Amino acid sequence: MLRIGLLGCGRIGQVHARSASQIEGVTVTAVADAFPDPADALAAKTGATVLDADALIESNNVDAVVIGTPTDTHYDLIHAAARAGKAIFCEKPVDMSADRIRDCIKVVEAAGVPFMTAFNRRFDPNFANVQNRIADGEVGDVEIVTILSRDPSPPPISYIESSGGLFRDMMIHDLDMARFLLGEEPVSVYAVGASLVDPEIGKAGDVDTAAVTLTTASGKICQISNSRRANYGYDQRIEVHGSKGMLRAENMLENTVEVATEAGFRKAPAQHFFLERYEAAYRAEMAHFVEAVNNGVDIAPGITDGLRAQMLADAAASSLEQGKPISLE
Amino acid sequence: MLRIGLLGCGRIGQVHARSASQIEGVTVTAVADAFPDPADALAAKTGATVLDADALIESNNVDAVVIGTPTDTHYDLIHAAARAGKAIFCEKPVDMSADRIRDCIKVVEAAGVPFMTAFNRRFDPNFANVQNRIADGEVGDVEIVTILSRDPSPPPISYIESSGGLFRDMMIHDLDMARFLLGEEPVSVYAVGASLVDPEIGKAGDVDTAAVTLTTASGKICQISNSRRANYGYDQRIEVHGSKGMLRAENMLENTVEVATEAGFRKAPAQHFFLERYEAAYRAEMAHFVEAVNNGVDIAPGITDGLRAQMLADAAASSLEQGKPISLE
Amino acid sequence: MLRIGLLGCGRIGQVHARSASQIEGVTVTAVADAFPDPADALAAKTGATVLDADALIESNNVDAVVIGTPTDTHYDLIHAAARAGKAIFCEKPVDMSADRIRDCIKVVEAAGVPFMTAFNRRFDPNFANVQNRIADGEVGDVEIVTILSRDPSPPPISYIESSGGLFRDMMIHDLDMARFLLGEEPVSVYAVGASLVDPEIGKAGDVDTAAVTLTTASGKICQISNSRRANYGYDQRIEVHGSKGMLRAENMLENTVEVATEAGFRKAPAQHFFLERYEAAYRAEMAHFVEAVNNGVDIAPGITDGLRAQMLADAAASSLEQGKPISLE
Amino acid sequence: MLRIGLLGCGRIGQVHARSASQIEGVTVTAVADAFPDPADALAAKTGATVLDADALIESNNVDAVVIGTPTDTHYDLIHAAARAGKAIFCEKPVDMSADRIRDCIKVVEAAGVPFMTAFNRRFDPNFANVQNRIADGEVGDVEIVTILSRDPSPPPISYIESSGGLFRDMMIHDLDMARFLLGEEPVSVYAVGASLVDPEIGKAGDVDTAAVTLTTASGKICQISNSRRANYGYDQRIEVHGSKGMLRAENMLENTVEVATEAGFRKAPAQHFFLERYEAAYRAEMAHFVEAVNNGVDIAPGITDGLRAQMLADAAASSLEQGKPISLE
Repeated sequence: MLRIGLLGCGRIGQVHARSASQIEGVTVTAVADAFPDPADALAAKTGATVLDADALIESNNVDAVVIGTPTDTHYDLIHAAARAGKAIFCEKPVDMSADRIRDCIKVVEAAGVPFMTAFNRRFDPNFANVQNRIADGEVGDVEIVTILSRDPSPPPISYIESSGGLFRDMMIHDLDMARFLLGEEPVSVYAVGASLVDPEIGKAGDVDTAAVTLTTASGKICQISNSRRANYGYDQRIEVHGSKGMLRAENMLENTVEVATEAGFRKAPAQHFFLERYEAAYRAEMAHFVEAVNNGVDIAPGITDGLRAQMLADAAASSLEQGKPISLE
Repeated sequence: MLRIGLLGCGRIGQVHARSASQIEGVTVTAVADAFPDPADALAAKTGATVLDADALIESNNVDAVVIGTPTDTHYDLIHAAARAGKAIFCEKPVDMSADRIRDCIKVVEAAGVPFMTAFNRRFDPNFANVQNRIADGEVGDVEIVTILSRDPSPPPISYIESSGGLFRDMMIHDLDMARFLLGEEPVSVYAVGASLVDPEIGKAGDVDTAAVTLTTASGKICQISNSRRANYGYDQRIEVHGSKGMLRAENMLENTVEVATEAGFRKAPAQHFFLERYEAAYRAEMAHFVEAVNNGVDIAPGITDGLRAQMLADAAASSLEQGKPISLE
Repeated sequence: MLRIGLLGCGRIGQVHARSASQIEGVTVTAVADAFPDPADALAAKTGATVLDADALIESNNVDAVVIGTPTDTHYDLIHAAARAGKAIFCEKPVDMSADRIRDCIKVVEAAGVPFMTAFNRRFDPNFANVQNRIADGEVGDVEIVTILSRDPSPPPISYIESSGGLFRDMMIHDLDMARFLLGEEPVSVYAVGASLVDPEIGKAGDVDTAAVTLTTASGKICQISNSRRANYGYDQRIEVHGSKGMLRAENMLENTVEVATEAGFRKAPAQHFFLERYEAAYRAEMAHFVEAVNNGVDIAPGITDGLRAQMLADAAASSLEQGKPISLE
Repeated sequence: MLRIGLLGCGRIGQVHARSASQIEGVTVTAVADAFPDPADALAAKTGATVLDADALIESNNVDAVVIGTPTDTHYDLIHAAARAGKAIFCEKPVDMSADRIRDCIKVVEAAGVPFMTAFNRRFDPNFANVQNRIADGEVGDVEIVTILSRDPSPPPISYIESSGGLFRDMMIHDLDMARFLLGEEPVSVYAVGASLVDPEIGKAGDVDTAAVTLTTASGKICQISNSRRANYGYDQRIEVHGSKGMLRAENMLENTVEVATEAGFRKAPAQHFFLERYEAAYRAEMAHFVEAVNNGVDIAPGITDGLRAQMLADAAASSLEQGKPISLE
């Protein structure tokens, strides 16, 4: 039995509530949001009580908190939850500042509470399968990892402006995936980028198209590319070359139907966006959190993974700014 | 609001209970089973009351019944439910005897109750997509339909013995699919078959490998093949050739990962079996039933579709026995 | 060293001339055609002498004849060439009449000359690979073979009228392929068909869309479908199900490029028609003939294979006419 | 009519001789090689006369020279051929030194002779198709180009030692492809690399695994990766993302056969290596050269393309050495 308190009842909070409800032995007992409507709606669906964030964290009826609030609130909520002895499931990024994540690590470690950074893509059945097979030695030693991630279309400029930039907002998933698949910490980061999709994104100080090269101490290479545009669906692919072969995870298409006409053989577009594409991943990451908390086993990705990804995103942003590779060690 | 009474709490009953529970405004209010354990278990999960079948059908707390009991019980349950004025969702086959299905049609029509024959594959997102595109004229006039259906492995001989034979137990889905895609009634049926998978199946009087050819009055052709064995997963494919092109629905694989080694490029096996492969189809068929009942609109596939498929299965069995094509008109 | 005399300098004769020229140690020394222009043109290309058919067959400068003339001339040419002691490579069909093929078999066997029936598709690298793997036991015992063959568009009605009909003109390739892959003689043939592509084909007494079911004594099944129309290219596929798995040969597309847009993922059409699709097969079949003649080893497909395929085509035509399966033994 | 003199009768010279022989109106009239055996052998096959290089270049019986000799001889041969007024087809790289290529440009331009740098991959039907469709605007403005090129296995260390290094020997093809597809000159080059395949390659001062990032003035990005190892065949792929969609060219596999077993669905390995994979490209590039020389039209890729690719390879090598991006303008 695990009682979950949900901090943040927006889109991602609702996803986590649904995932949690489907797990045997898990109940969402309390929800909190800065606005009453989403909190009331989610309470109605789950049977949870609406509380304010502080009360929720202190509640005797809550064993674990799921933090799905805006990023700038994570720091305080993590501190409070850790002090209250609650297990913590926290949306990425943990914080926009690596130093503040280090503070969070201290309080979490001091409190000894379980902590999960919600890099959901590690739990995508396709990507998880790739990582399992790497771990099983199926392709030998990893040499080159390629990660491609393209959103179907750019978010509003207002979102861009407060997002921390493409590297911290979007590529951070790929940077975590790089670490997950390389099995070794990157020691250098080189980034290039431009605003090719929408000049307004450039005016807002961000890029919408970018490529990053990571290297590790032993010489492994990772190439990442990102774009805020892909009219054929949400493009999410990885490819891993090792000494004994190659693994690649293709997109999930809307269906398996192919039509053949004079124009050739045509399949459906890729599944549209993250809620659909990563539905199974969201369910699996929550299941992992619940199982780890219940059984007292290690959680991965943990808070240190959150820090490492943030450091890589910071380094990528610096690299783009300075026009040179950034060394991490 | 629709209150569902579930007759039969075995594997398929549980699937329908889960599908129904996920639909807004639907409640499973009562369950019945010949054995107390499955009924109690499903009642615990859904919050339903355990009743005996007669009481469930008569209950004022039930608007619609879902019949998932053994085939030989369908006839009486349909009669009772129709007389009680309940909407009826009935697993395929409606009955093993076409004449008895004709009786059911009479009572259902007399009662004027909605009736759905649960040919779930029509609701598979891939197959439904194919049918939609045929209806939209995307490949012009249909000329040849090919349907392939192979179970991963044969059921126990005890099941085979009471199954009504491959044509009525397994191919009936494909025969319904043929009608769904051809858009015209078959007028001749020719079947061949053998027991190549397991000689015991032959001793039990059945075949485990079979092929059927259907033709329509206008000359359209459908080729169906079935086998009780496919070691690479549950093989479920259709292909439609029309005057303007071809549509084909491929298998759903376990994941999108491909590994490349000296042996070549290898993808995952097909999803294992029907509960996994047709999960979305089961949800969509229940949603269609609920929507149709709630809004008083036509249900497809209805009870006549159940009869037509049974007639085709009977004709296929006769064709195999007699070694010649059977005319249906 | 092998000196080839080419009987018939039309399209297929030119293909064989080109294939032969590319083989080390093979020379086309003489060509013959009912019309002077094609003979002169091919002589110019190959350096061969133009002779009339009789002189070519008798020539001391010719070791083997390649017969690519109209079908109704095959009989006499085979008789003359066999008596002259020449090795014979003969285009399919050997003759439109099974009885006349039996006559040819007698004279060929009496003369003891090598004879190849040019069922080129057995030499397609993809189909040959499938057969090799069946022979290697990779998919266990063959249970169901599916062969699909669709021309990009129908030939002129004038061609249809003298073609012997779809079964003898077009499906004969698939009937030979069925024997090649089943590894066992078919004992029953059932055919359905209609003229769905062009009513003029129906008026000419032929069908343009057809499906055939073959069975063997041990219960193996083969499903064949043919159409004179496929707007997405020349559709040539086979699929083999065995006790240990499935083999399928997909179409060869015009290129490997895929474009992704809002409409989805689109690949090129299939290679347009037989000269392109079976270019490698034509080369390989000639190489097999040359090697077999040079080394005195068995040729497959031989003249008996030509007879068997013709008998199956005859049976299919009878089955369509009579509306019932035809037994072959 | 075009008379070709072939300088260099090794593997690549033989490829070009074969390509040339298959073109209507082209004759290989003379061949030269530092060693008598390969020259004699090729002369025997083509009917050409064996000459020494100087005599061949001066011969009145030669209109165009094909240079397939070791790279360090290109410079002198180009100078001599240009002065002799011959059209020049030169294997890549034109020279290992960009400055020496500039010298060659001067003499070629002064002589006004046609010059082709043999970047054969531009003529691969798949890659050419991608470029045509970019030029047709099918995917809008190009934003990101990804080029992957992996040899099946590393060459001998002796070859590595005199190869000029991976960037100049192997990646130069991809650097030319990048220019071909980007449609805009790269202005910065960043390279990373390591010897992960064979430490001996590292000891020889080279890398066997490398990744390069190119950017153009307008912000377009190209990611290239190379490895000397790919056990699943010769891996040669490109992917182009534009404002209106994506184009990708997949590998050419050995055949189209797929086998399905418990292990999943397996296709053949990629075609083994460049002679097989780029057979059609070699034919098409020679056809382009012949047509351009005959009709006096522009040749692409020309000598400047050879220079640009070399400059990019030099920059990549410098980048790896210096650990920072190299600016090209």
